[in-house]
Amino acid sequence: MRSVFQEELDGVSQSLVDLSNMVSDSIHSATQALIEADLKIAEEVISNDEKIDLYQHDLDSRIIDIIARQQPVASDLRALVTALRMSADLERMGDLAHHIAKVTRLRHPEKVVPAELNDLVNHIGSVAENISRKIPTVIETRDTELALQLEKDDDEMDKLHRQLIGLLTNNTWKHGVEAAVDITLLGRYYERFADHAVSVSRRVYFLVTGTFANSTR
Amino acid sequence: MRSVFQEELDGVSQSLVDLSNMVSDSIHSATQALIEADLKIAEEVISNDEKIDLYQHDLDSRIIDIIARQQPVASDLRALVTALRMSADLERMGDLAHHIAKVTRLRHPEKVVPAELNDLVNHIGSVAENISRKIPTVIETRDTELALQLEKDDDEMDKLHRQLIGLLTNNTWKHGVEAAVDITLLGRYYERFADHAVSVSRRVYFLVTGTFANSTR
Repeated sequence: MRSVFQEELDGVSQSLVDLSNMVSDSIHSATQALIEADLKIAEEVISNDEKIDLYQHDLDSRIIDIIARQQPVASDLRALVTALRMSADLERMGDLAHHIAKVTRLRHPEKVVPAELNDLVNHIGSVAENISRKIPTVIETRDTELALQLEKDDDEMDKLHRQLIGLLTNNTWKHGVEAAVDITLLGRYYERFADHAVSVSRRVYFLVTGTFANSTR
Repeated sequence: MRSVFQEELDGVSQSLVDLSNMVSDSIHSATQALIEADLKIAEEVISNDEKIDLYQHDLDSRIIDIIARQQPVASDLRALVTALRMSADLERMGDLAHHIAKVTRLRHPEKVVPAELNDLVNHIGSVAENISRKIPTVIETRDTELALQLEKDDDEMDKLHRQLIGLLTNNTWKHGVEAAVDITLLGRYYERFADHAVSVSRRVYFLVTGTFANSTR
């Protein structure tokens, strides 16, 4: 029979999966709102971020309560502390989707993204979402191969991000400095979103293997 | 007589103070290197960041070890979990100073900051350093008044940051888009540095009062 403690640990993993799904949905909607200058969807992302924050806050309280009551052995304690760090990464990913939605709202009804950048920004958005959609499987299966795949996805993100900044700075940019400032910040938000997703996956990798994923690259 | 556990808790506080001093020194040097396009200082900030990361890594291991051995009661456990979060904030502040130094290195021997922005960027740098220099006293005295003062300093940072972005976007910017992209990112790094400093101080405030500082503003 499974112990109450084991059930509590599984509950924490499930909540991390739920939180991952919430932030994946947020970045999906944030990108859609951004490309289409859709105020309604942007507002939804902004208000959903409060739910993500509350969910994370409750999860963290639950984790601390489990540590206090169960006084877990070193390996379980490490897993619970890691869960706290993962929830912090996921909460931050929600913030970054929220930031993207706020840029959309600020410029509405104008579009933030010039038409010729739509494909690239869409691509960046889908790479970000794609990385974050892999997190639940990494958490559920502790599949270290998949965890390493996220590192590759993040390399793709970095490449696209450099491409985006390149388009701003190659002397053909004709949309003015304000648009360049917006695009610079958006690029940064997506890049950081992916960084935090990779960080979640690295933490799982470390729990499973006891070594850091980035040292294997 | 003071218990071993109490001494260990004090040791954690002292390490957080040390880490704060390290990141305050980093942001000080990062700003100096930026304004003066001083490659040597920029390189120092970049290599010091590894020391900060190692220091934080050791501190975190020590905190988890204390939790595992001492199985602290709820309030002490909460303080130790908070210490983990504070160390993560401080480590991130080190990263941001490191990012600023990397922009300096990337553009060297060119100056990243146009001469007419020197005063503003210097001001932003000193507000960032000033906030982070207050952290040791907040940690050592748990002075909630001082913790609230950091919120005010952060309002000042937000004002200066808006002013900086305003200078980029008011149609008088004559330094091109690449410089605008650099300044946008630098502004973001300083703003985030201050945010994390405020986050450290809010965590102390919460430990002492049991309420969130931002709800009192």
